[in-house]
Amino acid sequence: MHMEPGTFIVRHTDGKARCGELHTAHGVVQTPIFMPVGTVGSVKAIAPDDLDAMGAEIILGNTYHLYLRPGDDLVARHGGLHGFSSWPRPILTDSGGFQVFSLSSLRKLTEEGVAFRSHLDGSKHLFTPEKVISIQHNLNSDIMMCLDECPPHDAGYEYVARSLGLTSRWAERCRAAYPKDDVARRGQLLFGIVQGGMFKQLRTESAGQLIDMDFEGYAIGGLSVGESKDVMMDILAHTAPLLPEGKPRYLMGVGTPLDIVRGISHGVDMFDCVLPTRNARNGTLYTSLGKINIKRKEFAEDDGPLDPACSCYTCRTFSRAYLRHLFHAQELLSFRLNSIHNLTYFLDVVRGARAAIAAGRFDEYHQHFENLYTS
Amino acid sequence: MHMEPGTFIVRHTDGKARCGELHTAHGVVQTPIFMPVGTVGSVKAIAPDDLDAMGAEIILGNTYHLYLRPGDDLVARHGGLHGFSSWPRPILTDSGGFQVFSLSSLRKLTEEGVAFRSHLDGSKHLFTPEKVISIQHNLNSDIMMCLDECPPHDAGYEYVARSLGLTSRWAERCRAAYPKDDVARRGQLLFGIVQGGMFKQLRTESAGQLIDMDFEGYAIGGLSVGESKDVMMDILAHTAPLLPEGKPRYLMGVGTPLDIVRGISHGVDMFDCVLPTRNARNGTLYTSLGKINIKRKEFAEDDGPLDPACSCYTCRTFSRAYLRHLFHAQELLSFRLNSIHNLTYFLDVVRGARAAIAAGRFDEYHQHFENLYTS
Repeated sequence: MHMEPGTFIVRHTDGKARCGELHTAHGVVQTPIFMPVGTVGSVKAIAPDDLDAMGAEIILGNTYHLYLRPGDDLVARHGGLHGFSSWPRPILTDSGGFQVFSLSSLRKLTEEGVAFRSHLDGSKHLFTPEKVISIQHNLNSDIMMCLDECPPHDAGYEYVARSLGLTSRWAERCRAAYPKDDVARRGQLLFGIVQGGMFKQLRTESAGQLIDMDFEGYAIGGLSVGESKDVMMDILAHTAPLLPEGKPRYLMGVGTPLDIVRGISHGVDMFDCVLPTRNARNGTLYTSLGKINIKRKEFAEDDGPLDPACSCYTCRTFSRAYLRHLFHAQELLSFRLNSIHNLTYFLDVVRGARAAIAAGRFDEYHQHFENLYTS
Repeated sequence: MHMEPGTFIVRHTDGKARCGELHTAHGVVQTPIFMPVGTVGSVKAIAPDDLDAMGAEIILGNTYHLYLRPGDDLVARHGGLHGFSSWPRPILTDSGGFQVFSLSSLRKLTEEGVAFRSHLDGSKHLFTPEKVISIQHNLNSDIMMCLDECPPHDAGYEYVARSLGLTSRWAERCRAAYPKDDVARRGQLLFGIVQGGMFKQLRTESAGQLIDMDFEGYAIGGLSVGESKDVMMDILAHTAPLLPEGKPRYLMGVGTPLDIVRGISHGVDMFDCVLPTRNARNGTLYTSLGKINIKRKEFAEDDGPLDPACSCYTCRTFSRAYLRHLFHAQELLSFRLNSIHNLTYFLDVVRGARAAIAAGRFDEYHQHFENLYTS
């Protein structure tokens, strides 16, 4: 059944947790969902056929990276990011702002936008709200993000208050550059990003200002940036309920399996993180019995599958002993097999959450992850 | 139809070229065949499912590497190399001798064998003919190779003559360590390696001595080690006809697509080379229209498939523009996609040769490759 892009239907709730579906121009996304990160147009070590096999529904592309190389204009000439990377299902792109602050040098923040030098060749660039919308137009992502400033976790009240003002004015300029009328016409959705640091009052202010701009969804930014888990969950618990129930909620850059399940318990619908792929490349693998490091001697003669409860290609096909060997030899295949497994695990976490919510047993599901990862 | 391992049936000949089938304990190999190289128990960047998809029939494992890490005894405890690496079809292992000479330090060659230090940790080891048979027993490869000495391409007559004597005595010890009776009982085949450098008389001597030992197949070693292509083909043309018609002939470490087709024209049945996978990782890709380097600017906006005549996953799915982007970004996916294509190309070369031989049109097929790669 075709529905207008942006249609978001909550099918079940269980406490604050909910499961539903988000309609986009490239298909429906079941929520809660985890989005594998495909920074420069490929999820590291993973091809679209692998994503299909693991049941990935939506992936993330990084605007900063794709703008610098190969360039959003080139991507536009080759069918947008879907056509260019041969991934036919939904894509979310970030605004690039976060990467400007974490990767580039000589940043200069003004009302106009943020000037920076490329981490690749030192060339000078300027991201403005209008510019990042234009880039995301070119990439033709299903979900675009507003340019925002993400303050450090230990920023003071005054700084954060000023910063969220800027974020709100930039959000307004993004909405103006991509008005509501364009949503149906172009099919791309635009999400606002709530900031406000670790100050609940500022989170409330930020959320209020963004909701007035009527975005197709709302992200919670500025978390998982160095603060403690307790603070993160406290701010999340405050912020998530401020957001409209009928719109998808996206917790940016989060996180561990436990963070994700806790996020779902607060009513979050969407998550992304490099953790499963980055850890895969470091040999840290998630299993139904907890996290392991495949490097360890104890796996040298272990004939069992990485995770007996997992049905991914890696677990169906190879032993822990072989995976350990590949990792020690730093064979390229190691990175793919480990990434396939970790991504499958993260997708299984959200699939399990959806089933638990639909069955009214989410508390139990949540508790299982608390026990697994905090004992 | 099950046949004894070692059964080799020539189905068609066309000039000196022939096509047929070699029966092994893990299935039948159609010849002529190209064997992807899986040095440490994985073809670099490639999983068994990729090998299946490209129609690989037999792969090669390197005894030297697997002996050092993870150890042949460990591999034996995990189902041999087939079980350990989850590749259920035929495997050939080399003897490790060539890698001792190219990778390890402090080599000392005696009648007994070759002592060396590991390139991984400097530990001391000794390869004797009996030891490399024992290692290959543990790996349980379908085809084992005798320990040999491979002289440099510019070695003089006296050196090569002495060396081939040693190679023959080692071959005799390998045969004694794995007598003919064991072939049917264990299912592994043992191939002798003809040496003799660039001296036809010595090649004739070496072949004669090995044939007397009645191996299940014969390899031509010591070519493609730095000599000119003309010399290589001259020595090959002399050596291949010395070998029994009813046994498979294997040209070790060769080569380019043209080398392979020329080898087939001289009656060679089996080839292996790291060229397709190593070049893939360098961005050098083989196509039906010749070799290209995907790095080049001319491909930046090229929407076409890498090779319109190829049906591999890479060519079916991605554009040259995207492959160029992945290579420039040095994304891990680049190595897999390029390797899938190059290996498919090499397998297509031998598949095409088989079809041409069966149709009595091999000369024309050969000429096509001469035109493609020498113009």
